[in-house]
Amino acid sequence: MPTQIIINALNAVREQKPLVLNITNYVVMNNTANGLLALGASPIMAHSRDELAEMMVFSGALVINIGTLDRLWIERMVFAVEQANKQGKPVILDPVGCGASQLRTQTSRRIAEMAERLIIRGNASEIIALAGIESRERANSKGVDAIDASETAMDAARHLVRHYHCNVVISGETDFIVGEKSEISLHNGHAMMPCVTGMGCTLSALTGAFAAVGESTGLAAAAVLGVAGEIAAQQSAGPGSLQLKLLDVLYQLDAETLTQRLSISADGAK
Amino acid sequence: MPTQIIINALNAVREQKPLVLNITNYVVMNNTANGLLALGASPIMAHSRDELAEMMVFSGALVINIGTLDRLWIERMVFAVEQANKQGKPVILDPVGCGASQLRTQTSRRIAEMAERLIIRGNASEIIALAGIESRERANSKGVDAIDASETAMDAARHLVRHYHCNVVISGETDFIVGEKSEISLHNGHAMMPCVTGMGCTLSALTGAFAAVGESTGLAAAAVLGVAGEIAAQQSAGPGSLQLKLLDVLYQLDAETLTQRLSISADGAK
Amino acid sequence: MPTQIIINALNAVREQKPLVLNITNYVVMNNTANGLLALGASPIMAHSRDELAEMMVFSGALVINIGTLDRLWIERMVFAVEQANKQGKPVILDPVGCGASQLRTQTSRRIAEMAERLIIRGNASEIIALAGIESRERANSKGVDAIDASETAMDAARHLVRHYHCNVVISGETDFIVGEKSEISLHNGHAMMPCVTGMGCTLSALTGAFAAVGESTGLAAAAVLGVAGEIAAQQSAGPGSLQLKLLDVLYQLDAETLTQRLSISADGAK
Repeated sequence: MPTQIIINALNAVREQKPLVLNITNYVVMNNTANGLLALGASPIMAHSRDELAEMMVFSGALVINIGTLDRLWIERMVFAVEQANKQGKPVILDPVGCGASQLRTQTSRRIAEMAERLIIRGNASEIIALAGIESRERANSKGVDAIDASETAMDAARHLVRHYHCNVVISGETDFIVGEKSEISLHNGHAMMPCVTGMGCTLSALTGAFAAVGESTGLAAAAVLGVAGEIAAQQSAGPGSLQLKLLDVLYQLDAETLTQRLSISADGAK
Repeated sequence: MPTQIIINALNAVREQKPLVLNITNYVVMNNTANGLLALGASPIMAHSRDELAEMMVFSGALVINIGTLDRLWIERMVFAVEQANKQGKPVILDPVGCGASQLRTQTSRRIAEMAERLIIRGNASEIIALAGIESRERANSKGVDAIDASETAMDAARHLVRHYHCNVVISGETDFIVGEKSEISLHNGHAMMPCVTGMGCTLSALTGAFAAVGESTGLAAAAVLGVAGEIAAQQSAGPGSLQLKLLDVLYQLDAETLTQRLSISADGAK
Repeated sequence: MPTQIIINALNAVREQKPLVLNITNYVVMNNTANGLLALGASPIMAHSRDELAEMMVFSGALVINIGTLDRLWIERMVFAVEQANKQGKPVILDPVGCGASQLRTQTSRRIAEMAERLIIRGNASEIIALAGIESRERANSKGVDAIDASETAMDAARHLVRHYHCNVVISGETDFIVGEKSEISLHNGHAMMPCVTGMGCTLSALTGAFAAVGESTGLAAAAVLGVAGEIAAQQSAGPGSLQLKLLDVLYQLDAETLTQRLSISADGAK
């Protein structure tokens, strides 16, 4: 069942070519735009309050990524989320480095509080920090790098789901897709993926494309990127090749490959 | 004849290594700098009013790309165009997303109005929006993505040429190079090119390099990128490979390959 | 001896995975983050005064790169250097385009003056401009592109070493690592490397990773990047391939390859 949902969602993105509005960090703008194009969606990167209201009207989703944050950009993000709410569009929040500074933690919470149709995509340490759950993981935090998802992270995700009425994706060696009614584990991906900067940011951007066509759990994006990433990594001598082959594989990904490769544990209704 | 002009212009860029000053968007800064280097030119990315006047003196052309616009950057662009005018240097305007917001349309027009030696490079929907010509194309606009050039776009380009005394390049499946005295169609390129973000932005940057050595129609850049892009795409499994192979092919491009590959229809004097 | 120091330093980076805080230019943020990841370090890109103090506490080094400068970013850089000093952390200054504008020259000097544990990494023309030594080289300056290191550049580097009590790396066809007690020449690298934008910026970022684990001369970074760059270039048809293969080679680089490839002339104590 999940496999068919993912395939249908991929087909829908390629047919509808949804416009995804991104307010993201300087480091990954190029990657995420290319990731969206390779998937079949249309990226738009914009940040000015003088045009966000207009652009939100014809965009299918808003992706907010706080990777290179400052006060000026926070205002823009807040304004953009207001426009998304006004248009009834989904918001994907990528709380990059949440927990590494008060600024990031507070901004992530502010945006999560505001967004009416919300999906949060982060690694375990970011999800834990966003939920405000103290743990050994936080003390060991290596900034924006991923740590393995753990029971602490799952508890944090469940807390976020209840508190913000949102869906949460914890990405890591295993990805966890946590919603009010189901929890799904995804075992695709490859150990070399964290050696490419912005792989999580690309996942958040793709989540926006799928949300724009009605797949609002975060599952399809995690599945598609996990499968494409593991294929690309197996063909790559290192992270440089991985970054570009990922786009080639995303571009060519078909239902047969997804069906063969997907490794999903659906924990079903709770 | 056009082929020889293009080859001579490429040789001139490689010999003179002109410095091209870029005020461009965050998404493509890396690509366009690498595109200029692979061609044989010298990119400089700068935006501060505290240094643009100095830098314009020793730069050969100014490229203004409005892909990630805000008020702060508009002021910088306006100031830079003033400096280019003062130094008698050509200005290349890339009106990214013109028509997708009032901010972009108005800013594009303001810069087009100011620049004394102007080349405009956009896709059909941007050129139509810049000219203010209403059409079915606008209503179907998918933001910053290209739609096919059409008669409407050609009419828009001719309007811009007359109104701003500029040259216009409409890029798409067929590129149109429109000037006061001639209209040229270029049939190179590849359908995969729009799947790489910023391919048009790279074209605008290369247009700056050629303008800096005196080829001010936009033809040479469109020809060189079209040929390099189609060779690179034929060697690529997807847009990731295309992005990097394009730089390899640009770096190695020679007169023989251009002569073999170029597909130009020169409509001659009107 | 230098070879063993370099190998030990590389092992230390891979074991300790130091967090390197970068305030760098828009053009190269992605490259430098990927370079640090491929080496085995952890990049963090941040610029807000609202979080730099917190982040400097758990970061191992600060890299300041002035490639796309403006007043707002200068304040952020100055604030970050203050925090690095407070925490006793090394600062790597990359004076991109120093000499191409008064803004860049003055800002470079201001940061060099402030930083208490300083390494400067630039090309010959930047080092000469920073030291304020007039020469034919400056008159021929092609902006941010490298010119060959020369006696003038060595004199400039020695002046900077004495004046700022720092270490200096002049990168070029031959790299020169200049300190108070020794001068080392490094003959690795490849002529195609300057055709990739931000190769010097990547060198500065890697210098930060090595400084964070105690190798504060700049030698290890120049050696590792020089060897990785020459291997990658030999496998590449052009600068596009070079950019990605460099990351693959960095990721896989081992002691044996370094020992075979390194070409170092240690001029010993002066």
